[in-house]
Formats: sequence, C-alpha cells, structure tokens
Amino acid sequence: MPNLTACLIVIGNEVLSGRTRDLNIHFLAEKLGTIGMPLREVRVIPDVPAVIVRTVNEVRAAFDHVFTTGGIGPTHDDITAECISDAFGVPWEIHKDAYALMAARYAEGEFNAARQRMATMPRGATLIPNSVSFAPGFTIGNVHVMAGVPRIMQAMWGALEATLPHGDPVLMRAVHATGMLEGSIAAGLSAIQDRYPALDIGSYPYERPGSRGVSIVAKGYDAAMADAAIAEVVQLIGDVGKVATMGEPA
Amino acid sequence: MPNLTACLIVIGNEVLSGRTRDLNIHFLAEKLGTIGMPLREVRVIPDVPAVIVRTVNEVRAAFDHVFTTGGIGPTHDDITAECISDAFGVPWEIHKDAYALMAARYAEGEFNAARQRMATMPRGATLIPNSVSFAPGFTIGNVHVMAGVPRIMQAMWGALEATLPHGDPVLMRAVHATGMLEGSIAAGLSAIQDRYPALDIGSYPYERPGSRGVSIVAKGYDAAMADAAIAEVVQLIGDVGKVATMGEPA
Repeated sequence: MPNLTACLIVIGNEVLSGRTRDLNIHFLAEKLGTIGMPLREVRVIPDVPAVIVRTVNEVRAAFDHVFTTGGIGPTHDDITAECISDAFGVPWEIHKDAYALMAARYAEGEFNAARQRMATMPRGATLIPNSVSFAPGFTIGNVHVMAGVPRIMQAMWGALEATLPHGDPVLMRAVHATGMLEGSIAAGLSAIQDRYPALDIGSYPYERPGSRGVSIVAKGYDAAMADAAIAEVVQLIGDVGKVATMGEPA
Repeated sequence: MPNLTACLIVIGNEVLSGRTRDLNIHFLAEKLGTIGMPLREVRVIPDVPAVIVRTVNEVRAAFDHVFTTGGIGPTHDDITAECISDAFGVPWEIHKDAYALMAARYAEGEFNAARQRMATMPRGATLIPNSVSFAPGFTIGNVHVMAGVPRIMQAMWGALEATLPHGDPVLMRAVHATGMLEGSIAAGLSAIQDRYPALDIGSYPYERPGSRGVSIVAKGYDAAMADAAIAEVVQLIGDVGKVATMGEPA
C-alpha cells in the first residue's frame, strides 16, 4: 500500500502578518516523515471563516489526513472549531467529556463562557488530550485540530501520534561537498535521478560561517537503494575534483 | 482603494520533509505588511509539476500579487520556471538579457547547459536582479519568481520592492500582561473588537523563561483608532487586576 498523505493548515493572522514566526510546520514535517505519512502540502490561512471552511473541505478531500494548528483558544479570534463544524455540516455544541474535564480544573466561577467555548466542538469529535493546559484538541473524520502554541501543539501530537496509521518511514541519506557549485554536477545528478526513479534526489546549496557548498539528499523507502544512489553521487563529486563528506554539513 | 493582496508559494520538497526550516515566509510576511500589500495566504508545495502549475493558476487569479520562492537553480529538481511557463501557456525559452549577463560572469566553458537553464524563462518575463549570485529571478504577469536560499531571496526582494505598488502600511499596536490568562478577558476583548470592526484584534499567549502571559495586538490602517482600542484593552486588563505593559514582551 502506498504511504498515506498529510496536509497541514496553519490558521492564524499572526503568521501572515509576520508577528509570529511559525514553528509548527517544521515540527510536523519531521514527525510526519518519521511515521511514514509524508506532508504533501501546507496552507497558511487567515482567521476568516469562509477561507477556513473552504480550505478544510478542499484539502480533506485531497489528502488522507489533515492537521490544523491555531484558533482553538477562548478569545473572539479563535474560530477554528466553529468553522470545522461548518465544514462538516454538523452542529457546534458542548462536548460532554471536554466540558467535564475542563470544569474539574477551574475554580468556582472561573469556568466562564469564553472558556466553555474551548469545550464546544463539532458533534462527533473525539478528543486529543492536552497535557500542558488541559483544553483538548479534537479529531473529526480525517481532520485533527490542534493548538497553535508550539508547546501545546507538541503535547497534542504526542497524544495523537500513536492513534494514526503508520507507514514506512521516509529514509534520508545525504552527502555534501564544500566549495562545490550545483552547476558543476547538475547533468550527472540528473542522470543519477533518472536511474533511481523511486528516490527523490534533491540538491541544496548551503552557507555556513566560512564555508559554502552543496548538499545532495536522497529520500525514499529503500535504504539499500538510497545508499547506492549516494555512492554514485560521491563518485560524481570526485569526478569534478571535490571532496564528498557523508551526511549534512555541520 | 483597498490594499492589494499577496499570496506566497513556497516550492520545495525540503520544507515539506522537514529537512529545511523555511525562513522566507516570515521575512516576506513582514516586508509585505510594510509596503501595504498584506500577505493573505501561503502554500507550501512539492517539486511536482502538476501541483505547481495548478497552484500558480489558482492563486494568481485569486490574489493581486503572487510571490514564489525556490526551484530556480541549475539542478534537475529546479523546475519552477518551466512550470510557470506552462501555467501561463507561453514558451519556456532562453531570456536574452539573462543569458547575456550570466554568460559574462562565467569563465570559458563554465556556462554549461545546467547553468543555461537558469537563463531559460517564460517568454515575456522581466528580470529580478540578483546581487548575490547573479542568476536572476523574474516577473511574469502578477507572479514574482524568486530564489529559495534566504540570502538570495532577500537580495531579490530588495530589487523587486520598489517596482511593486505600495499601499497604506499595516500598523500594529500591542500591549501585554504577565500572569494573565486569555479566558479572563475574552468577553471584554470581544466587545472591543466589535466596537472597532476596522481593526483586527488578536490575542496571543506567550511564554518566556520565567514569565507567561498574553499579548493583545491591534492591526489596521488608522493609528488613532489602534491607539484608542489599545487604551480600552489597557483598561480591561486593569479591571481583571493585572498590569498592562505597552508593546510586546521582551
């Protein structure tokens, strides 16, 4: 069976305005690769109901699993749960288990209407536990709704991960050469890619203090094949008079 | 006239695999806000021709300006220029000015076929100068095609910025309160948002070493209005017994 695919929707004006530097894309890209459900697309969208509903419905049909971050707190700009309900055409209502676990954590009179919104979810949602601040995320259909604050999102991922189907993990092999330019190996590299169509071979210039060069990365599901392709890249680098070093540059 | 809108397409398997942490979204989000062309959506997509062509055609119809990063180098995985040509239905051909300026920079025999690809562009493209590594980006229609390497992309932005229409810059005013929880001010904040519909008021929990709290940010085009809204937020924070400090937390 081919690996399942994932799409991430980052919901939040603060990323689009440049106020906040997103950290969730990189975290989830790595984690999804590790469980063999490669991330195939990311959308960063604003806190606009029509855009959220349209985007969710588009990508939940196109990808096997959809993850969202952001917009599930207690304030007026937290509209993700309501929009996901609209997208699925189900009522947005108090989730009894979420309500009970949150009511138990707040002092008398503190579980106000704004906080009760965090227990209001699409009908049929199952909870994603939150070990940091206890207001849970949720899953409905193939859509997994998580917090935007990285520490909370990561805790939710920790709870969610074991419940997801796992595929073959994506393997990565890399080699790099200092002082090499991409253009000097491009033709040879293209020929190697042609000989290993099951691999995804990428070429990435890098800059480090005092050192520039190119990393070549082979990704795929077959370790022997990735090793063989990288061995050919090492040969190619030697052929243009440069020194190949295994792995990514430090 | 309402401000023009922008969409960014980040093209590259390396971001989706988690190998590379994207830095371009944050840079362009800030810069586009500064010139009054707010970023409304970001797509991160893989090096797959059909996905690139479809995405470019979708977003160039939906937004005033589209920016792309990635995929314009000399290697086999650099397919952006060819895909943009397909999207616009124009030939992908040698751009004479790009060819001439690159040919002048390479030593005899070094301007090989792979490097000539970097001078191959959609017919009708205008060049975006690259002061770092000289292979230029380009503009066709409302689509601006830039490098993925941040230092090169930033140099291209520096050349491109003055050629773009500028709108009213997006203003931001912020206040924060240590030790406050969002749920304690959510109802009052929602009322303030209702009184200032022309502003976009966001609430963002933060964590710093030894300090947690909430930032409230008001964005818009009218400084007096943003100041007035923030003054109401300061009052609200005082009403729940917390101390408001102007600006974002350090």
